[in-house]
Amino acid sequence: MRRHVQRLAPYVPGEQPRERGLIKLNTNENPFPPSLKVLKAVQSAVDGRLRLYPDSAPQELREKLARLHHCEVENIIIGNGSDELLALATRAFVEPGKGARGAIQYFTPSYSLYPVLSEIHNATCIEVPLRKDFSMPSVTVLRREKQWDFRAALTYVTTPNAPSGRGYTTAELDSLACAQKGVVVLDEAYVDFAEENALSLALNYPNVIVSRTFSKAYSLCFQRIGYFVGHPDLVGALDKIRDSYNVNGLGQEAALATLEDLSYYRKNFQIIKKMRKFVTKELQSLGFKVHPSSGNFILVKPPKFKALAWLEKLRGHNVLVRWFDLPEVEDYLRITIGNELEMKSLLRASNQIIARA
Amino acid sequence: MRRHVQRLAPYVPGEQPRERGLIKLNTNENPFPPSLKVLKAVQSAVDGRLRLYPDSAPQELREKLARLHHCEVENIIIGNGSDELLALATRAFVEPGKGARGAIQYFTPSYSLYPVLSEIHNATCIEVPLRKDFSMPSVTVLRREKQWDFRAALTYVTTPNAPSGRGYTTAELDSLACAQKGVVVLDEAYVDFAEENALSLALNYPNVIVSRTFSKAYSLCFQRIGYFVGHPDLVGALDKIRDSYNVNGLGQEAALATLEDLSYYRKNFQIIKKMRKFVTKELQSLGFKVHPSSGNFILVKPPKFKALAWLEKLRGHNVLVRWFDLPEVEDYLRITIGNELEMKSLLRASNQIIARA
Repeated sequence: MRRHVQRLAPYVPGEQPRERGLIKLNTNENPFPPSLKVLKAVQSAVDGRLRLYPDSAPQELREKLARLHHCEVENIIIGNGSDELLALATRAFVEPGKGARGAIQYFTPSYSLYPVLSEIHNATCIEVPLRKDFSMPSVTVLRREKQWDFRAALTYVTTPNAPSGRGYTTAELDSLACAQKGVVVLDEAYVDFAEENALSLALNYPNVIVSRTFSKAYSLCFQRIGYFVGHPDLVGALDKIRDSYNVNGLGQEAALATLEDLSYYRKNFQIIKKMRKFVTKELQSLGFKVHPSSGNFILVKPPKFKALAWLEKLRGHNVLVRWFDLPEVEDYLRITIGNELEMKSLLRASNQIIARA
Repeated sequence: MRRHVQRLAPYVPGEQPRERGLIKLNTNENPFPPSLKVLKAVQSAVDGRLRLYPDSAPQELREKLARLHHCEVENIIIGNGSDELLALATRAFVEPGKGARGAIQYFTPSYSLYPVLSEIHNATCIEVPLRKDFSMPSVTVLRREKQWDFRAALTYVTTPNAPSGRGYTTAELDSLACAQKGVVVLDEAYVDFAEENALSLALNYPNVIVSRTFSKAYSLCFQRIGYFVGHPDLVGALDKIRDSYNVNGLGQEAALATLEDLSYYRKNFQIIKKMRKFVTKELQSLGFKVHPSSGNFILVKPPKFKALAWLEKLRGHNVLVRWFDLPEVEDYLRITIGNELEMKSLLRASNQIIARA
């Protein structure tokens, strides 16, 4: 076993409980099922063809995504979830070791997978804190403070940010991307719940990739479909080193059918955004500090008890939320926006916890 | 982009034609569909749960496999096809660079993915030729000839071998595994079509892994489920560096249902082995040299024309077989054992090609 693998602390995903009856607000899954058309399309693909290999470089799916994003098939690579592509990027673009060519860089807090990917790859990890309100320091400030490396081989930016929910403007992402010498991955896993997206940067800059996923907004976590949009040279490098059959066949079918039924999902985005607004207000009136969010979740600082105590108390009411054992966010809980029933349960439980304080 | 990635020649999988009506004997898929029970189980799992993440470390599937193989859950890791696990092994066990700790070793010809995995990982590749009849040199011979490195970090052995089809005895694999200081992966993708398997070695040696897949024998290429059996320390190292949700949910459902219906598949193995025998005889009577096979395919040296010409001529008869652009096997075709209709079409086409010679 390689030495750095021995030392490695693996990524810990949010709990997927086996018990029934829990209200699951811990892993940012969409409360709505896939559309009926998607379920039917997948069901009708479950036949003898399961014996065959799926399309190795999912042509039809890439064509449809290219039409959606007004780009070329060569701009798109599909992954076994966007996590696979985020990991592939380390192996394609980062030379393990010291110095800028070995550097993986990101702001904290953001997606807690990045430090794990850096460790797995034996890269040099550069972490730069966001400001107190989770906004991004400007390029001028980054230059002045000198922690940030504009020559880092690979920079990840979660936008909208997780776990804070904070959205970044395309303008500020543009100025960062423009200043960066290495590859910049804008991880837009939650972008469908935001007001802006930065896809144009992936098509305008040779070093920018936008990461998207069908998991959250398109209710397809189960089937592992994510994709990158970027310059054909970057996409080509990732394509060379991926597993040949990295994208399962029924996942391809599900994603294809999803793209035929986008209006269903867009309605859901509106409902979730409305619910986010409602829950924010209600929690604020209970004394929670709620950060403004552009995702399908909110980051909250609860009143009366510490966040970790709240985690356990909510669990006692069968409500599962997420807490991160990281100094920057240890006072916070991340709560996924669920459906009306789920949110009412959350509010009722919170009310009771406070009433008993 | 990293320099070795720029230079890299990617793995070329067998063609997955989009046109209908072709007889597909090029990628060793099973001619039989998954069992009806499996299809029903997958269909009935296609519902709202697609919105949820699948089990991250598929507990139920690992439990069932552990019972099947008389081992512990900790001996088993599931992958997005066994290809994912073969690649993970390079990253867990091989230190990129020169010397034994950076060495990935295998016999040639065998699975053409191994050199690609070695290149992707920037490892040192050690290739040692099999004997003319594709048998494995003994440990004594390997020691004497000094090409083989008994301290190589990672050794892959395809058993039964592909593309030759040659089966190796557990005894000879045992003596090799025993002599090897690094990790040995016995890739048993085709073992259900053979007379022996070497699973016991994975449970008896701390450095041996057996690789299995649901793709070929269990008609599930589409859904990407493979697994490794090995010592908990090796399995644990791979587990740390895999993507958290590497195994899609419907694939897990399909594999679980498969393990409940093994008798269906075992009948198919018998039919395929019988067909292998029949086709071998028929092709021999047409002048083909056919290597004895323990897989669901045969390696043949065709008469009258070169192998590459045969590839094209068979394609002209809508029969797709596989040819490898490698010096050791450029005179051969690899033909998947299909169903009766497919095999009769192959024989009819071969007859006509020879008649017109």
